[in-house]
Amino acid sequence: MSIRNEIESNNAAWEHSAVTLDIPVRFAETDQMGVVHHSAYLVWMEAGRIAWLNAAGIPYTEIAGGGNHFAVTGISVAYRNPARFGDVVQVVTRLESLRSRQVSFIYDVRNAASGAHLAAAKSEHICVDLDGQMTRIPAEIVARMLAGARELARS
Amino acid sequence: MSIRNEIESNNAAWEHSAVTLDIPVRFAETDQMGVVHHSAYLVWMEAGRIAWLNAAGIPYTEIAGGGNHFAVTGISVAYRNPARFGDVVQVVTRLESLRSRQVSFIYDVRNAASGAHLAAAKSEHICVDLDGQMTRIPAEIVARMLAGARELARS
Amino acid sequence: MSIRNEIESNNAAWEHSAVTLDIPVRFAETDQMGVVHHSAYLVWMEAGRIAWLNAAGIPYTEIAGGGNHFAVTGISVAYRNPARFGDVVQVVTRLESLRSRQVSFIYDVRNAASGAHLAAAKSEHICVDLDGQMTRIPAEIVARMLAGARELARS
Amino acid sequence: MSIRNEIESNNAAWEHSAVTLDIPVRFAETDQMGVVHHSAYLVWMEAGRIAWLNAAGIPYTEIAGGGNHFAVTGISVAYRNPARFGDVVQVVTRLESLRSRQVSFIYDVRNAASGAHLAAAKSEHICVDLDGQMTRIPAEIVARMLAGARELARS
Repeated sequence: MSIRNEIESNNAAWEHSAVTLDIPVRFAETDQMGVVHHSAYLVWMEAGRIAWLNAAGIPYTEIAGGGNHFAVTGISVAYRNPARFGDVVQVVTRLESLRSRQVSFIYDVRNAASGAHLAAAKSEHICVDLDGQMTRIPAEIVARMLAGARELARS
Repeated sequence: MSIRNEIESNNAAWEHSAVTLDIPVRFAETDQMGVVHHSAYLVWMEAGRIAWLNAAGIPYTEIAGGGNHFAVTGISVAYRNPARFGDVVQVVTRLESLRSRQVSFIYDVRNAASGAHLAAAKSEHICVDLDGQMTRIPAEIVARMLAGARELARS
Repeated sequence: MSIRNEIESNNAAWEHSAVTLDIPVRFAETDQMGVVHHSAYLVWMEAGRIAWLNAAGIPYTEIAGGGNHFAVTGISVAYRNPARFGDVVQVVTRLESLRSRQVSFIYDVRNAASGAHLAAAKSEHICVDLDGQMTRIPAEIVARMLAGARELARS
Repeated sequence: MSIRNEIESNNAAWEHSAVTLDIPVRFAETDQMGVVHHSAYLVWMEAGRIAWLNAAGIPYTEIAGGGNHFAVTGISVAYRNPARFGDVVQVVTRLESLRSRQVSFIYDVRNAASGAHLAAAKSEHICVDLDGQMTRIPAEIVARMLAGARELARS
């Protein structure tokens, strides 16, 4: 069974592979509009997918330590409501797709206290080596990400 | 003629209303992959649209001073090539659409020296008042943005 | 007894009023040297003093909500060892001095796992009003900060 | 003549080796106090010393390309007046000291339009290799920095 097929047959499971990370808003993340600057959400999303990888059993330090990075090739964010200093934001991260050279994640950002929806977002990545050249995601990493996603969906 | 109609009839002109801003990459903008972190592009795009407004004759300090902000409701970025410390990046900003309550800009980010395409991006905004409530873009601001876009397209 | 005298007589107690905050290093905080950029420590120190104020029973949201800010007038940091992505840093914050218009905090930043000393730092602040003008720290805030420091030292 | 002695005999000259860099304040650099966040000054100082090195004829990309970095070991900043969105800040950087393993710079940050003094600052650095280990500043770099400082002082 190819990675692609295995991935597609697991899509249903992935929908349930959400990992939740709570992040207290930093004062430095606000701007003079009195709310969090929109660029902070990209940093939160990054923290969210690192938490997803950790929860799935593949710490990003290990991927990077092995000489690979998931370079960002696309970002989209729909901002619904502002986040403010004093808030704790909740980033819910899901694996969206996994191919031999590409991976994407989707995110919901909420106010942890009220549950208000702050943003919906997506990130797309390619695997690169230490020289920044596109490369296949090592087979072992793919296998562990799939197993991790299945495990997360089960729990 | 409604603002909407006037906007649509000016679309052709806007395509040529590009404003170019050169930004030297900051060392602090790099990450341990050795290239610029993807969140920096949002800050460059913001600098780009502020340069567009300045060039169009409507400094953002004046919009903010009048009690309004163009809050970001959507961001999308397609990253093509990495930017590195030592590079000067060139942000080319165009007005994409202008409605009574919404405005959007599109961006091309290039390497200023080589012309290499680094990213294509878009930002969507609503107009908010000092309390963060959605409001109409003041008619005078709309008129000046339109006049500015036309002027930029002509020059 | 003046605030000043009360403060001085409490100095011994303050030495023990440490509040500890654990912060996972963010990937975005690294730079191309492969370690955390030195500017991130200022953001961590800010999070540390906000945690101190929370623990002392005076949330900073309340100070800001009352129309005051502790504007930063001085920062000094001695960096001992680098922090890396994957590390959790531990910020230990202590109140150093409290006067009618000024307050200062001291910080120790450590690697939470190894205990390695990463940085020693200090921040100095004045109280400003909503217009940014220097003003006295409201008496009630001073009293609560003193009571909080005493309580922290006891526990 | 030792590097140390040569340095000391050149101290008088260095006082005049100032390099000026104008930096437009970014909206993202403000916080909810309505002024620039204090951490932005460290990024401006970094841009200032990179401009100094460029002006002195030793681009930092070349130092880094040769496998060395000037890691920050100390930072101190005295903040005098706030910077605001819309301002252009002027960073005046001077070499303060240069030893075989250490270098320090001093900075004055002003409002470019009014000349108002915003901050006085200092940064201290050690030379590290690609593994982050302290090492001597390569002799050629020292010689070029000294020559550059002399040249800057003359012009």
